[in-house]
Amino acid sequence: MPDMTDPTAATIPTPKSPAPDVLRCAYMELVVTDLKRSRDFYVDVLDLVVTHEDEDAIYLRSMEEFIHHNLVLRQGEAAAVAAFSYRVRSPEELDKAEAFYTELGCPVRREKNGFVKGIGDSVRVQDPLGFPYEFFYDVEHVERLAWRYDLYSPGALVRLDHFNQVTPDVPKAVGYMEDLGFRVTEDIQDAAGTTYAAWMRRKPTVHDTAMTGGAGPRMHHVAFATHEKHNILAICDKLGALRLSDRIERGPGRHGVSNAFYLYLRDPDGHRIEIYTQDYYTGDPDNPVVTWDVHDNQRRDWWGNPVVPSWYTEASTVLDLDGQPVSTTERTDDSEMDVTIGADGFSYTRKDDEESLPEWKQGEYKLGHQL
Amino acid sequence: MPDMTDPTAATIPTPKSPAPDVLRCAYMELVVTDLKRSRDFYVDVLDLVVTHEDEDAIYLRSMEEFIHHNLVLRQGEAAAVAAFSYRVRSPEELDKAEAFYTELGCPVRREKNGFVKGIGDSVRVQDPLGFPYEFFYDVEHVERLAWRYDLYSPGALVRLDHFNQVTPDVPKAVGYMEDLGFRVTEDIQDAAGTTYAAWMRRKPTVHDTAMTGGAGPRMHHVAFATHEKHNILAICDKLGALRLSDRIERGPGRHGVSNAFYLYLRDPDGHRIEIYTQDYYTGDPDNPVVTWDVHDNQRRDWWGNPVVPSWYTEASTVLDLDGQPVSTTERTDDSEMDVTIGADGFSYTRKDDEESLPEWKQGEYKLGHQL
Amino acid sequence: MPDMTDPTAATIPTPKSPAPDVLRCAYMELVVTDLKRSRDFYVDVLDLVVTHEDEDAIYLRSMEEFIHHNLVLRQGEAAAVAAFSYRVRSPEELDKAEAFYTELGCPVRREKNGFVKGIGDSVRVQDPLGFPYEFFYDVEHVERLAWRYDLYSPGALVRLDHFNQVTPDVPKAVGYMEDLGFRVTEDIQDAAGTTYAAWMRRKPTVHDTAMTGGAGPRMHHVAFATHEKHNILAICDKLGALRLSDRIERGPGRHGVSNAFYLYLRDPDGHRIEIYTQDYYTGDPDNPVVTWDVHDNQRRDWWGNPVVPSWYTEASTVLDLDGQPVSTTERTDDSEMDVTIGADGFSYTRKDDEESLPEWKQGEYKLGHQL
Amino acid sequence: MPDMTDPTAATIPTPKSPAPDVLRCAYMELVVTDLKRSRDFYVDVLDLVVTHEDEDAIYLRSMEEFIHHNLVLRQGEAAAVAAFSYRVRSPEELDKAEAFYTELGCPVRREKNGFVKGIGDSVRVQDPLGFPYEFFYDVEHVERLAWRYDLYSPGALVRLDHFNQVTPDVPKAVGYMEDLGFRVTEDIQDAAGTTYAAWMRRKPTVHDTAMTGGAGPRMHHVAFATHEKHNILAICDKLGALRLSDRIERGPGRHGVSNAFYLYLRDPDGHRIEIYTQDYYTGDPDNPVVTWDVHDNQRRDWWGNPVVPSWYTEASTVLDLDGQPVSTTERTDDSEMDVTIGADGFSYTRKDDEESLPEWKQGEYKLGHQL
Repeated sequence: MPDMTDPTAATIPTPKSPAPDVLRCAYMELVVTDLKRSRDFYVDVLDLVVTHEDEDAIYLRSMEEFIHHNLVLRQGEAAAVAAFSYRVRSPEELDKAEAFYTELGCPVRREKNGFVKGIGDSVRVQDPLGFPYEFFYDVEHVERLAWRYDLYSPGALVRLDHFNQVTPDVPKAVGYMEDLGFRVTEDIQDAAGTTYAAWMRRKPTVHDTAMTGGAGPRMHHVAFATHEKHNILAICDKLGALRLSDRIERGPGRHGVSNAFYLYLRDPDGHRIEIYTQDYYTGDPDNPVVTWDVHDNQRRDWWGNPVVPSWYTEASTVLDLDGQPVSTTERTDDSEMDVTIGADGFSYTRKDDEESLPEWKQGEYKLGHQL
Repeated sequence: MPDMTDPTAATIPTPKSPAPDVLRCAYMELVVTDLKRSRDFYVDVLDLVVTHEDEDAIYLRSMEEFIHHNLVLRQGEAAAVAAFSYRVRSPEELDKAEAFYTELGCPVRREKNGFVKGIGDSVRVQDPLGFPYEFFYDVEHVERLAWRYDLYSPGALVRLDHFNQVTPDVPKAVGYMEDLGFRVTEDIQDAAGTTYAAWMRRKPTVHDTAMTGGAGPRMHHVAFATHEKHNILAICDKLGALRLSDRIERGPGRHGVSNAFYLYLRDPDGHRIEIYTQDYYTGDPDNPVVTWDVHDNQRRDWWGNPVVPSWYTEASTVLDLDGQPVSTTERTDDSEMDVTIGADGFSYTRKDDEESLPEWKQGEYKLGHQL
Repeated sequence: MPDMTDPTAATIPTPKSPAPDVLRCAYMELVVTDLKRSRDFYVDVLDLVVTHEDEDAIYLRSMEEFIHHNLVLRQGEAAAVAAFSYRVRSPEELDKAEAFYTELGCPVRREKNGFVKGIGDSVRVQDPLGFPYEFFYDVEHVERLAWRYDLYSPGALVRLDHFNQVTPDVPKAVGYMEDLGFRVTEDIQDAAGTTYAAWMRRKPTVHDTAMTGGAGPRMHHVAFATHEKHNILAICDKLGALRLSDRIERGPGRHGVSNAFYLYLRDPDGHRIEIYTQDYYTGDPDNPVVTWDVHDNQRRDWWGNPVVPSWYTEASTVLDLDGQPVSTTERTDDSEMDVTIGADGFSYTRKDDEESLPEWKQGEYKLGHQL
Repeated sequence: MPDMTDPTAATIPTPKSPAPDVLRCAYMELVVTDLKRSRDFYVDVLDLVVTHEDEDAIYLRSMEEFIHHNLVLRQGEAAAVAAFSYRVRSPEELDKAEAFYTELGCPVRREKNGFVKGIGDSVRVQDPLGFPYEFFYDVEHVERLAWRYDLYSPGALVRLDHFNQVTPDVPKAVGYMEDLGFRVTEDIQDAAGTTYAAWMRRKPTVHDTAMTGGAGPRMHHVAFATHEKHNILAICDKLGALRLSDRIERGPGRHGVSNAFYLYLRDPDGHRIEIYTQDYYTGDPDNPVVTWDVHDNQRRDWWGNPVVPSWYTEASTVLDLDGQPVSTTERTDDSEMDVTIGADGFSYTRKDDEESLPEWKQGEYKLGHQL
C-alpha cells in the first residue's frame, strides 16, 4: 500500500470506502504559548463565550452555537494547530471516517471519550495533505445564546464559519476534498490553468474550508461570523481603543471571492483569525462555480485595496497526531503574490484597460501596483 | 499697507473690521476637464442630486440640503478649485466680509447677482493664504429631499460636511481662521511644537474646514456626509461593481482625529472627495481641543491602517479671482509623511512600547512601518 | 385506498415510497388581479429583478439567486396562490415525488416542460393538506447578481427565505411534513399540549415553510431575506415616501421564534410578504428544538409589540391543480389570537409575574393586553 | 406687574431684557422613587456612564459628553422632574437669564455653587409655563468617552438630544420660547389653524425642546441619541432578553416630524425616555419650517404605525423651585389624539384618498383607524 501521506505524490487516490457525511466545520484546537494572554484576546477583546476553562485549556463558543465549543485554546510550548474538527451527521459516520483514512494510508486514531472536553467518540487523522483532521458526532449541548442580547457586545461573533489551509498543490488538495464530499464554490486561476486557491463547502455557505496555495501544510486562518458589517467595524474600533490596532493585519474590506465582508486579525501567537459576514447560499448541486482571474485586482478585495505580503506568506504550523510539528513542502506552482504584486506580476482593475489608470494611481502607494 | 497675501509673511494681522458671521461651509466650485465624465462620477456613481445643469456646469446637492447646491462642476481646461464657499448669517454680513478682506489687502470682488446660479449677492476674495473664498447669504431654496426615501441610494450623501485645505504654515493659517471666527477642535502636533494639521469649525461639528500642512494653497478634499457607516461601504461595493475600485484612494476606515468613519475617493480629474460620517458635537465654547501626537499611528486611522503617500502629497490647484492657477509655496516645517513613515520617521501603536510589536508585524507589509 | 386529501382525517399515513430529497423552497406562483399594479409593487417598490415578463406573467428573482425566478406573478381574476414550489436534489427525485403523493392518494400531475417558464420537468400535487405543492430540479440558470452592487437598492431582497401556510391541524401537518423529510426547528404550544404553529426546514435555516394554525389551506406569507436590518427599515422608509405606508401590516420587529428581524407587507391583492433577516444555522440533526409558550408575549415579537388581528385572521386562497379555489376547513383547536389577546386570553412578559406590569402598561394601549 | 406665571394668560409678553444665549439642552434632573431600581435601568440596561453617585443621587452622562452629566437621578418620594437644564454661552448669560425671568414675574433663584454636583453658578426659574428651567455655564469637565470603544455597548447612547414638554397652549408656549431665542423647525397643525405641537431648537438639530399640546406643565420625555439605527434595535433586543419588553411603549419607528429614527421607553417610575437618531441640520436662519397636517397618518410615524394612547395622555409631574408638584391646566384646544384616532377623528395615508385603503386595512387592527 502506498504511503498516501507522501506530500510529493501527484494525486491522492479516491478511496473505495465511502466518505463520512460531514455536516460542517465545528471547531479548531489551537496551541498557544501563553494561555492568559490568549484569553485576554479571545475573551476580553473578541468576546467569545467561555464554556469551560482550566489550567491547560479554554473552551470557547460563539453566540449562536449549541455544541460545547468552536475553539479550544491549549497551553503549549510552541504555537500550532492541533486539530481542524468537523462534525458528521451521525455516530456511524465515524466508522466511515476511520475506514476512509485507513484506506488512504493515513495515521488514524479513535478516542471513544474524545480528544478534548465536551466531545465524545472521535476520529483524528493526519490527512493526505498533512493536516490534523478530526471527525465527531457526540457532543455536549450547551445553551444557544442567540436570544441573550444582554450578553452581546458590539462585535459579537455568532458562528464559526470556516477554516483556511495552506497547501502547496491546490488541485491535488481539491481532488482529495471532493472525495471527502466537499464541493468547490469558487476558485482563483490564471489563463494557463494554474489554480491558486479554492473554496469548498459542506454546509451551504461558500466554504467550510479553503485551500490556499503555499508551503504547507499550514493553517492560514479560522473564521467567525458576525451578523452585520458594523459588528466587524466595532471590533476594529475596540482594538483601536485598547491600543491593539496592530492586531489588525488586513481589512476590513469586501472580498471578491465569497462576496463576504471581512477582517483579518492576528492573535498573540500570530494565529490568523478572520471575522466574516454575508456570503451567499450555495446548497444547490448545480450552484455556479465562480472562477476568478488571479490578475483581477478585485478578486481578494472587491475595493482593490492591497493584500499585505504577510497575509500571503505567514501561516501557523500544524501538528501530527503525536503533537509534533509537521514539516512543510514548498509550492512549486506560481505564487499568487509573485504573479500579482511581484516585480513581474500585474493586477488590473478593468481587464484590457491597464493603461486607463488615472495619473494619481500610477504612483507607488498601492502595494498591488508597487512591489 | 502691507500686502497681506504675501505667502512668506510670518503671521497675518488681525483686522480691526469684524469678521463676517459664518454659518457653515456651503459649496465648492470645481473646474473639471470633461463635464460628462464628471457627471458620470458625481451623479451616476455618487448619486448627488442635480439641481440644474447646462452645457457649462452642473449644480449638485445632497439629500438633506435646501439651498441650491453643495457642489458646482464647471467645464474648464485644467482641473482646479474656483471657490470654497461659506454661507453667512444675514445679507449684512457680506459688507463685513468685504471690509475684513479689504483691510487684509486681499483681492475682493462683489457680485450682486452671484458668481454662480442659485446664489445672490456674494463676495469672493483671494484670502491671505491664497485660497478663493466666497461668502453669501441669498440663495435659492430647493426641495429638501430628506424624506424622499424613494430617491435614496444605498450610499446616499446627505450633507456637505467640510473642506480641507493644504497650506505650508498651519499655525499662521489657524491664526487667520480664528480671526475669521473659526475655532480649533483638534490638531496634530509633535513634542517640539510643530503643528502638522488643524481642524476648525463654525457649525458645531469637528470642522467646516481643516488646514493640512504642505505646499499650498491647494485643495486637499471636500467631504460629504452619509447617515451611517454601511452607506460608505455601499459606495465602495458599487465602485467595485462598476470596476472603478481604483477611484478608492484610502479607506474606508475610522479616523482618530474627529472619530468619524471615512473614505477617500478621487474623481476623474483627481479631485479628492471624502465620504464621512459620525463625528461629534463641538458647539460649546469650552469644547475640549484634542491634540494628537504626530507619531501616534492611530491619529489618522484609528485602526492603524497606513496612509497612502498620494494622500499626503497630491492636492488640487486653486484659482485666483481671474481664474488663474495660484502658485504654491513649499512647506518648511517638517512633513507629516516624513516624520511618520519616512526613512527617519516612526509611528507607534502604544507609546513607549515600540518594541512590543509582534514578530509578524515587524516585517514590511505596513506602509506605516515600511517606507 | 383512503382519500388522503380528506381534510378531516386525523393523521396522514406515512407513505412507503421514499420522500423526494428537497433542497429548499424555490419560488411561489401568485395569481394577481392587476399585473401592472403588482409590478409597481414588486419591481418598483421592492426592487425584485425581472427575469422575464409578458402579458400574462412576470418572473422575478432576488439579488443572490441563480435560478430563473423566486416569484411568478400571473394575471388572473381572483387573487390566489397557484404553487408552493420546492427544488429537489436531482431529476430522479421527481419520480419519488410522483410516487410519494400518488401513494397518498393526492392529485398528481407531471409536466416535462414545466408548468411555468424557466423550469423544466416538474411534478405538481395537491398535497394532503390541500396545498398546491410543486417539485422540480431542471431550471434555467440566470446571472447571480450578488456582486452587482450598482443594482442594489437600500432595501435589496437577496434570497427567497421561506413560505408560511395556514392549516387547521398543526400536528397533523407536521407529521406529514416530517414524512416529506422536513425537520421541526421551533414551535408554539401551550401547557395543555395544543400546538399553535410549527417551523420546519430542509436547508439549514429556521424554515423553508411553517404551519400556522387556522382555517386552511391558505397561504399566510412568502418571505424574502435582506442582508441587514437597515435594509428592512429602508423598505419602510420608502413606503412612507411613496405614501404607501398602509402596505405595512406588522413590524418591523424582532421575532422571538427564529430570532429573525422581520416586516410584514400586504401586496395590492392582499397577499402577505415578509421581509426577514438573520435567523440561525439549524443544520445539525440534533439541532435543539425551541418550544415557545403561546402565552409568552415575546414569542412572536421579542419586543412585546402587539400582533395585529389581521395577521392572525387573513390569508390567501390556494388553488387546486385545475386552478379552482380550495375550500377551507376551520381550526377546531384553540386559536392563538383568542388565547393571547382575546377576552379570555392572556400574555405575559415575565412568567409568574403578570402583576408586575407598571401602572402605565395596564391601560388599553397594547392590543396584546387590550382586546 | 402682571403675574406672568398665570397659566390662563393668553400670551406671555416679550421681556425687554435680552434673552440669555442658550447653547443647548444639557441635562434633566429626575426624581425617582427607588434609586437602586432606576440605576438598574439607566446604568445596567441603557449603559449610561456614571460620573458620580452617592446615597441620594446618581449623575449620568452619554458617551460623547464632556460636561459632568446629562441626567441626574435623585431619590424622592414621588416621581417628578426637578429641572430642565440648558447650558448658556458664557457666565455672563446668567445675569441675562435672571433679568429675563424676573421681568416676566417668574420665581427665580441663583446658586453660585450650583443646585447639583458638577455644575457651578446657576439660575433656576419656574418659567411662565410652569416648568422648572435651569441655566448654567460653569461645569466640571470629564473625559469624553467618544473614542473608548472598549466601553461601548450595542445600544450606546452618545448624546443628550432634546426635551419634550406638555403644555396646554402650544402657540403661547412657542411665543415665549421664541422670545427666549429658540426657533421653530417643525410643527403639527390643522386646516383651522390649531397647533398641536411644535419643535424648537438652539443647537442646529430639529430641537432642543418641543411643546406638545396637553394638560401641563408636564414632562413628556427626554431623548438620548445613538449613532445608528441598529443601536436602537439593540436596546429593544436587550430589553427582550432581560424580559423587560414592557418598558417599550412605542416604536421603534421613523418619525415623520424630524425624520429621525426613534424608540420610546418608560423608566421604572414611568418617566418617558426617547432614543433617537438621525435628524437633520437646521442651523440656517431661513431653515424651512415643516408643517405637518394633524390628520397625516405619517406625521408621527412615517410608516403609519399607530401612536399608543398612553403616549398622548401620560407624562411626568414637574416641580416648582420648592420641590412641590406644579398643578396642571387642561388643554382647551382640540386634542391630537381625539382628532386623529378618536370617534370623530380621522387620519389619512394619502390625502384625498381615504377610500383607497385596501380591504384588509379597513378592519380594526390599526389604532390609527380604529378607536
